[in-house]
Amino acid sequence: MSQSLSQRLSEYAKVAEDLGVDAVALVPGPNFTRALDHSFGSHERPFVLVIPAHKPAAALVPNLELGSWELVGFEGAVFDWRDQTGYADAFKALTDHLDIKTLAVEGQVMRVFVHHALLAAQPSLTITDAEREISGLRMIKTPQDLAALQEAIDISERALHRTLDSVKLGQSEVDIEQMLVKCLFDEGADGLSFSPIVAAGDNSARPHAHARHDYAVKAGDALLIDFGARKNGFAADITRTVFLDHVSDEGRAVYDTVLQANLAGLAITRAGVTAHEIDDVVTNVLEASPYADRIRTKTGHGLGRDVHEAPYIVRGNHTKLPAGTVYTNEPGLYQIGKFGVRIEDDVLITDDGYETLTKFPKDLMVISC
Amino acid sequence: MSQSLSQRLSEYAKVAEDLGVDAVALVPGPNFTRALDHSFGSHERPFVLVIPAHKPAAALVPNLELGSWELVGFEGAVFDWRDQTGYADAFKALTDHLDIKTLAVEGQVMRVFVHHALLAAQPSLTITDAEREISGLRMIKTPQDLAALQEAIDISERALHRTLDSVKLGQSEVDIEQMLVKCLFDEGADGLSFSPIVAAGDNSARPHAHARHDYAVKAGDALLIDFGARKNGFAADITRTVFLDHVSDEGRAVYDTVLQANLAGLAITRAGVTAHEIDDVVTNVLEASPYADRIRTKTGHGLGRDVHEAPYIVRGNHTKLPAGTVYTNEPGLYQIGKFGVRIEDDVLITDDGYETLTKFPKDLMVISC
Repeated sequence: MSQSLSQRLSEYAKVAEDLGVDAVALVPGPNFTRALDHSFGSHERPFVLVIPAHKPAAALVPNLELGSWELVGFEGAVFDWRDQTGYADAFKALTDHLDIKTLAVEGQVMRVFVHHALLAAQPSLTITDAEREISGLRMIKTPQDLAALQEAIDISERALHRTLDSVKLGQSEVDIEQMLVKCLFDEGADGLSFSPIVAAGDNSARPHAHARHDYAVKAGDALLIDFGARKNGFAADITRTVFLDHVSDEGRAVYDTVLQANLAGLAITRAGVTAHEIDDVVTNVLEASPYADRIRTKTGHGLGRDVHEAPYIVRGNHTKLPAGTVYTNEPGLYQIGKFGVRIEDDVLITDDGYETLTKFPKDLMVISC
Repeated sequence: MSQSLSQRLSEYAKVAEDLGVDAVALVPGPNFTRALDHSFGSHERPFVLVIPAHKPAAALVPNLELGSWELVGFEGAVFDWRDQTGYADAFKALTDHLDIKTLAVEGQVMRVFVHHALLAAQPSLTITDAEREISGLRMIKTPQDLAALQEAIDISERALHRTLDSVKLGQSEVDIEQMLVKCLFDEGADGLSFSPIVAAGDNSARPHAHARHDYAVKAGDALLIDFGARKNGFAADITRTVFLDHVSDEGRAVYDTVLQANLAGLAITRAGVTAHEIDDVVTNVLEASPYADRIRTKTGHGLGRDVHEAPYIVRGNHTKLPAGTVYTNEPGLYQIGKFGVRIEDDVLITDDGYETLTKFPKDLMVISC
């Protein structure tokens, strides 16, 4: 990252100023990693970086992390705590040092025990959820961000090609999932964006299905695969639905409807479009079809360091999307007990249109296996 | 799992009763998975199961999860919400339906946005953190739990043997980490317990180090590897520290100190010992050595569905540990800028002693490479 630590911290100070709060707090997760250019875990140990609007930042750091923390080059006050003595005193020292009244936090990342520890140290503190504004700083991707994300996507697509080439009738969903995971790491993944969804037949109608040991894929099944590699801190997220051996007329019609919805969303994508407008045009295609009762999700979400991040592509979200935003365009139709189809692209918004970072073919694919 | 859903839910109702609160709330994570015998994710979508002390349970479920939810066999009230309309109304309907005044939550799992959504729906609700009591139900492992955990550990140890056999001087830490990850999936892992720590030389002194691309391992280095496979919902966690080509006298002395600390902890392990007693006897060995200033962590933590869970093996935690508890015995000594040593076993407490589920040798290992 070409920005310095102090430049990055000043962006969060500006968020605090714009929100009219005294400070912003970050905890380990994608914003923390972005701000510090180093990643940390947390588990049962509180770890908090507080960036005031108009004063130097300060941090509460588990003692065992001090050796890693020194790599960050942080110049503010550090309050460390040890497992043996607990963290209450460090929170008290931190809040006394900061002397703030209002604090904005990442509501989708900070857990309740940290929230409670802050309030125990300073009962008068007002804590507000500013997930949208804080994570909003990640919305416009830098060239380095895009390079990492593209690498994650390319790894994912190579793994998907290899996996689909190996599918055989009679395999279990778990067999296929294990092949996919092996291919992902073999192709260079650092990790998985999430536990892959590999779902055939009726299971494909569950948007977040788990692969089954006891279901053998059979001719005529829809096979939905939703997954992604993680690489250099960025997470790919791609879905393709294929049919095994043959496809029914209904399968073909549903697939075509989902594909038209996906394409309608792409067609209006350019800098300045709102999240509402994309979801609306996509959902309109689905709603106008004979399958409107099978709609179960919004169109998509932002993608980057986190698999799901702002902006959420949903009616009612009137955020104008700037060039550099990456979102998932993933319409689907799910008939519970029968089958589902989802097609998901990762889409970069540009000044005059868009670029689909996912290149995997979207034409209806019937696999001979 | 041999218990029925209603039996499992009644355990959480009992926790609420014992705590003197009206209900316990669970969100996706290890307790949620244990209670429902099905796993779910959450991301940006609130998903909450509330189990009152004396009334039927109720759930707030994202609409797109209903197809997966039906597999749970849950008979209580369900309040679903759709992406397009948001979740505020569903929280209001849930809290109106429940009619409770006090709610205990998992403070280390529930995130602030869910906490805020509950309070927005019912400002009078008192929310307390009962992480310890709720997760405490996972402390005693069932035979099925232990079988899954042992499989995760066995996979991990096979992968470690293969990885150490392949280490060559001049490789980067990242090279070694990638080999380890490939071996883990090749040996049958479902996933990783956490992003592995592969740290040599000065990096081994950082308890939560990240593998480096730009450091070539060299003769005389300590090589610390802390990692684990996930299998069937359970997470292994094992650390070994080896030396490459040769070991210095100091390296040998530090290693021996850490090993003696580990063995001292094992020696007093049996049902009824307290977490304090184990940490105390382990830490006493380290404190009595010439390396007391290199102590940075507590002795360990519980292990099961989560990599870090109750009981925490730390002075001051006077919880008596029952037979069936699994904890990590992982003393370490870390000299910042120089090197660190950690030895971590996964230990099952039994009525008359213990069983180390990790079988990987602990004798000082100097690798010819």
